[in-house]
Amino acid sequence: MTLVGVLGGGQLGRMLALAGLPLGLRFRFLDPSPRPTAAALGEHVQAAYDDPDALARFVDGLDVVTFEFERVPVETVEWLANHVPVRPGARSLRVCGDRVVEKRFARLIGAPTAPFAEVDDLASLERAVREVGTPAILKTRRDGYDGKGQMRVHEPAAAEAAWRSLGSCPCVLEGFVPFTRELAVLAVRDLKGEVRTWPLVETRHADGILVSAVAPAPRVDEALQAQAQRLAERVTRELDHVGVIAIECFEHEGRLLINEIAPRVHNSGHWTIEGAVTSQFENHLRAVLGLPLGPTGVKGYCGLANVLGQAPERARVLALPGAHLHLYDKPAQPRRKVGHVTVTAPAPELVEERLRELAGVLGPECGARVPAAVGTPGASH
Amino acid sequence: MTLVGVLGGGQLGRMLALAGLPLGLRFRFLDPSPRPTAAALGEHVQAAYDDPDALARFVDGLDVVTFEFERVPVETVEWLANHVPVRPGARSLRVCGDRVVEKRFARLIGAPTAPFAEVDDLASLERAVREVGTPAILKTRRDGYDGKGQMRVHEPAAAEAAWRSLGSCPCVLEGFVPFTRELAVLAVRDLKGEVRTWPLVETRHADGILVSAVAPAPRVDEALQAQAQRLAERVTRELDHVGVIAIECFEHEGRLLINEIAPRVHNSGHWTIEGAVTSQFENHLRAVLGLPLGPTGVKGYCGLANVLGQAPERARVLALPGAHLHLYDKPAQPRRKVGHVTVTAPAPELVEERLRELAGVLGPECGARVPAAVGTPGASH
Repeated sequence: MTLVGVLGGGQLGRMLALAGLPLGLRFRFLDPSPRPTAAALGEHVQAAYDDPDALARFVDGLDVVTFEFERVPVETVEWLANHVPVRPGARSLRVCGDRVVEKRFARLIGAPTAPFAEVDDLASLERAVREVGTPAILKTRRDGYDGKGQMRVHEPAAAEAAWRSLGSCPCVLEGFVPFTRELAVLAVRDLKGEVRTWPLVETRHADGILVSAVAPAPRVDEALQAQAQRLAERVTRELDHVGVIAIECFEHEGRLLINEIAPRVHNSGHWTIEGAVTSQFENHLRAVLGLPLGPTGVKGYCGLANVLGQAPERARVLALPGAHLHLYDKPAQPRRKVGHVTVTAPAPELVEERLRELAGVLGPECGARVPAAVGTPGASH
Repeated sequence: MTLVGVLGGGQLGRMLALAGLPLGLRFRFLDPSPRPTAAALGEHVQAAYDDPDALARFVDGLDVVTFEFERVPVETVEWLANHVPVRPGARSLRVCGDRVVEKRFARLIGAPTAPFAEVDDLASLERAVREVGTPAILKTRRDGYDGKGQMRVHEPAAAEAAWRSLGSCPCVLEGFVPFTRELAVLAVRDLKGEVRTWPLVETRHADGILVSAVAPAPRVDEALQAQAQRLAERVTRELDHVGVIAIECFEHEGRLLINEIAPRVHNSGHWTIEGAVTSQFENHLRAVLGLPLGPTGVKGYCGLANVLGQAPERARVLALPGAHLHLYDKPAQPRRKVGHVTVTAPAPELVEERLRELAGVLGPECGARVPAAVGTPGASH
């Protein structure tokens, strides 16, 4: 029997377990909340991520530890790594858990990013605005996700108020890129260093939250897919990363600029459950357990829409042709990700049509209704 | 929140839960064993199927009850049906839980079967042997599965010993059919009476246990698939069946003869997890909950091999191209079904090749090694 420990018990942990149970794996989740959604599929140790007694209970008998979010204290990962393999390792967490470190890392390995500058105090804020210009986006260095921890700065005079509203904490100011669209590179690296990349996926965000995606992304030529593969190889090798990684990019003048790196399974890869020969969840588990990776080829054309706020009426979603419903069994809350729907289609031109039908069912809060950014140069993140 | 009750907590219940959790369903299993494999995915009421106190605890708060095996006491189903919808209903259980009733039912609705005769005592045994001839197979009317509860009768003089070795209980003697191969009709019927059929699957048995399958079955013309659809419609309508049903057939002179009917999700449909737009498990849940059925079209070509006895080395299976591993997390035991592997392939001619590779990994006990019966008229069940 193989027991996998997961730091975090949210929907990503839940989907890891759904992929891992058929492989004969069992799961244990460490999560401070009383009823995390993944707990329905394994043991649950309810404790803070830095509780030493709980960590000792958590690690007992585990074969490997992985995580479903990158806001884990690095000290926790380092302590656990003395007792059991932790994959990905502390380096992936350290780099990807801080936006400034992440961007410096990208520059170091020669991967382009948007212009950025560090903000630690009012003086560096003023300097950052001069360097980067406006409009720009101010983001907290740590702990931001799904549009939380970020503010737009439309003009220099607005910068101070934005910084104060983020709690005057260490931030990064990012310049706007006139990108064509957002594309995510989803890849997996195994213990021996082999890297496999799924086809690029086009992602669409609203207010910093992923609302919909199309996979494989349309209009991707071989050169761009090859750049994605090289980028994934370089990033994961330099991090000595093991497992799935998602590199969120802007497409700008036919090239990929790194926006953010998530060292874990990621929302932009949920389509792989139906759309790829091996899902991101299964390949992550295969990688961290030292098992052979599965093929990352696609099985058809997919669109994805997140379900935000509250679950839709099941029957209405399931009546849509090619709709696959994934509910996370989480309490309703405005703008919370409570599920997603993947629509599969036999031809790429049907995907957008099915996403529009889906939008009609999911309602205005959900992503599929947001107009596609395709082909229209955007000016927001 | 929707809570589904399942009678039985084996691998079929487990796979129902794996398909149902993404739909936002929760599960409760009634099973007398202390650690049924499905219990990892829901609540477990440990009790006999006819324990009235346990049934009251089991039914409390359920939205629907279904079952994963047909050896449930009909009285239990009838008692439960007074409290909550039970789907499929008692009629499906009553007919399919007794081989003689099942065959009479098939005759009544005009569906052909192999020759058969009832056996209740020595006199009727003698008469049955005269009518049906030898070689034949003697099977217990109830409670037989995976080759249990059946004996071959090669000559009339061997009949009495065979009957005694089956416990001298009510039996049916079935004549041999010189069939070309075995095909299973997998279908689902919803509350409104709509019936959808997956493509026919070719099944291969050894000693009464399913060892491998190929889906869609090769060399199936439109007429045969249409016969399968009509058969599924007739059988499910007459049973007023709701949910998945598997009709195991012999192909004989281009026609389907009914061998056995399983009023539930079935081993011959496991390939639908990877190979069909909607799996048998998801469509069963959709049907019993009154939700719209999903498409039953295929996504490619599949082969399936059961894992018998004990789990194989994970890494060796996962290294095979297109292999999808499904382990049931059950203790090893000779000839017990402890998992299955589905191999997917982009072309039908690759399926047999991948099944052969798989056989090399799974070892001699497992099904994929059994020579295919394809095209060679068989003479055994």
